[in-house]
Amino acid sequence: MKTFYSEDHRLHHANAELNDGQLVPVFEKPSRADMVLARVEAVNLGPVLPPEAFGIAPLKRVHAGEYIDFLAGAWAEWAALGRTNDMLPLAWPPRRVQARCPKDIDGKLGYYSFDAGAPLTATSWQAIYAGSQVALSAQAAVAAGDRAAFALCRPPGHHAGIDYMGGYCYVNNAAVVAQAFLDGGMRKVVVLDVDYHHGNGTQDIFYQRPDVLFLSIHGDPQTEYPCYTGYADERGEGAGLGYNHNYPLPVGSDWSVWSQALQDALRVAAGCGAEAVVVSLGVDTFADDPISQFKLRSDDYLRMGEMIAALGLPTVFVMEGGYAVEEIGINAVNTLLGFEQQA
Amino acid sequence: MKTFYSEDHRLHHANAELNDGQLVPVFEKPSRADMVLARVEAVNLGPVLPPEAFGIAPLKRVHAGEYIDFLAGAWAEWAALGRTNDMLPLAWPPRRVQARCPKDIDGKLGYYSFDAGAPLTATSWQAIYAGSQVALSAQAAVAAGDRAAFALCRPPGHHAGIDYMGGYCYVNNAAVVAQAFLDGGMRKVVVLDVDYHHGNGTQDIFYQRPDVLFLSIHGDPQTEYPCYTGYADERGEGAGLGYNHNYPLPVGSDWSVWSQALQDALRVAAGCGAEAVVVSLGVDTFADDPISQFKLRSDDYLRMGEMIAALGLPTVFVMEGGYAVEEIGINAVNTLLGFEQQA
Ligand SMILES: [Zn+2]
Ligand SMILES: [Zn+2]
Repeated sequence: MKTFYSEDHRLHHANAELNDGQLVPVFEKPSRADMVLARVEAVNLGPVLPPEAFGIAPLKRVHAGEYIDFLAGAWAEWAALGRTNDMLPLAWPPRRVQARCPKDIDGKLGYYSFDAGAPLTATSWQAIYAGSQVALSAQAAVAAGDRAAFALCRPPGHHAGIDYMGGYCYVNNAAVVAQAFLDGGMRKVVVLDVDYHHGNGTQDIFYQRPDVLFLSIHGDPQTEYPCYTGYADERGEGAGLGYNHNYPLPVGSDWSVWSQALQDALRVAAGCGAEAVVVSLGVDTFADDPISQFKLRSDDYLRMGEMIAALGLPTVFVMEGGYAVEEIGINAVNTLLGFEQQA
Repeated sequence: MKTFYSEDHRLHHANAELNDGQLVPVFEKPSRADMVLARVEAVNLGPVLPPEAFGIAPLKRVHAGEYIDFLAGAWAEWAALGRTNDMLPLAWPPRRVQARCPKDIDGKLGYYSFDAGAPLTATSWQAIYAGSQVALSAQAAVAAGDRAAFALCRPPGHHAGIDYMGGYCYVNNAAVVAQAFLDGGMRKVVVLDVDYHHGNGTQDIFYQRPDVLFLSIHGDPQTEYPCYTGYADERGEGAGLGYNHNYPLPVGSDWSVWSQALQDALRVAAGCGAEAVVVSLGVDTFADDPISQFKLRSDDYLRMGEMIAALGLPTVFVMEGGYAVEEIGINAVNTLLGFEQQA
């Protein structure tokens, strides 16, 4: 399996995120990708390739154009005020308000955010953009005939919605890939999100659409981030009704519980007539992850890959979360190895 | 004029607020109230009285009951997790989501907030509650026949909505006072908000109601906090349509501009049949205020008080913002002196 990767991910390295009322060092840091890349190379998964250039248009197919323009230009507006700290939002639109996007950069920042966990630095946009091109390159390889490909994206993407960032995510790489398959002629695509956290951004993007089936297995939003989405009764709206499936699981869930949810999700996926699968591959389901509460073990990721392969569909794996840096490489690559053994 | 005041405001003294991407010392600090109290005493405005006890029920007449219960119990939930830092929200409900309030304290905190500028400390609730009793005591004095009274509340209140805090505000003291007048038998009350920032919380609370006319003169939300409300076309909804008047003014506005807006607001107030006026008295309209952009001078506040007095209605002044601590006392008390000269 080919891995797509860009060194430009290093250009996104924020100083701090807001956690428990204080600014703490970011969990989402460059070493995450380094560990995964090292493991890809250690097991000889396949060639590691730089991204090709697809431009910005595919991003605007799933995100609001003004949001992407905001991401690209935000630092310049911030720096023009003499500010040198990473950008973090201060205020956001309250309930019951039909918010307009303000002209002021502080107002824009809150308008385009849903948390204070997605700092923007002077060079973040270059890393975010490179990550999207990594994802599109993996999609192109699969569209051209590869059975599967791995997009080693960083920063991750699945919390980014139509017009907002948050949860370390800015551009929704998995959604960009799914849309690229559709724009290439497919009529139905599955996005399977196995990250510990609900893929609220992907859900937002496709919530009213029947052409992308979204399946997410994650910690119960009653107690787990992102706190406000991921309930089982969120099933889609309008034409998208029935094409959104959430599997919130209790804190402490291990493979025996988790794999039952996956089995059900794969049953739904198999029955929908999809022509490709995009996997939002977060491995913060790992027992020792510092910010999550599931109990998966490294061997479980082999089984996960095998089960996904059994769908028999062209598959793009897109890197999402996973914060126990020592094991992130083993677990992510185990998923890919399990897939290859079965495929 | 009587001033109501409680030393308990000191129990709210947060360490830091999020500003320009970093945690900085709070602008909303105890010395603000000290400066105003010192000026009240220096000019012999009148007796300074402690609050009487009105309990929590009047707060729940304008705020959601579960929100007030959250404020009262939040620190205990936070501390139970071993956390000792001031509480600041991490994530909030994104657009297009019908958010449920989570069980987890981080989720609750974001659910009940609209910015990261309202930290809660171990003893904040006692200060917030005391402030509301100060406001209710001033209302009671006026309801009992005083022409006017001054509620020296701290923390301020006008950014607090039905079920959210933000902008240094937790309980909307001005709204509590207005409701107390109505519950005492009045049929129409005016809330006049002269703080530099839009009184988004007061607007939220009364937006669908005709019994409280809300008038706010403030910095243009296109560039000024709270960023998402305060436009002139926000006129109320349903039965409240026509009872909400916003006067957004450009950055740099001085008394000549500002007083024209006040004149128009007072014309509307005079024509509505109100039986009492509640003034959200923020003096961050002052030229030297560190976080605001109007150009009022200390003498202008005398004129402001005179103009408000000319309405000829029972009046409660409720302290809101104002952050140039040296002059906050002079400017707030000048408003009250101007009122008394005219009344
Ligand atoms: Zn995650
Ligand atoms: Zn203010």
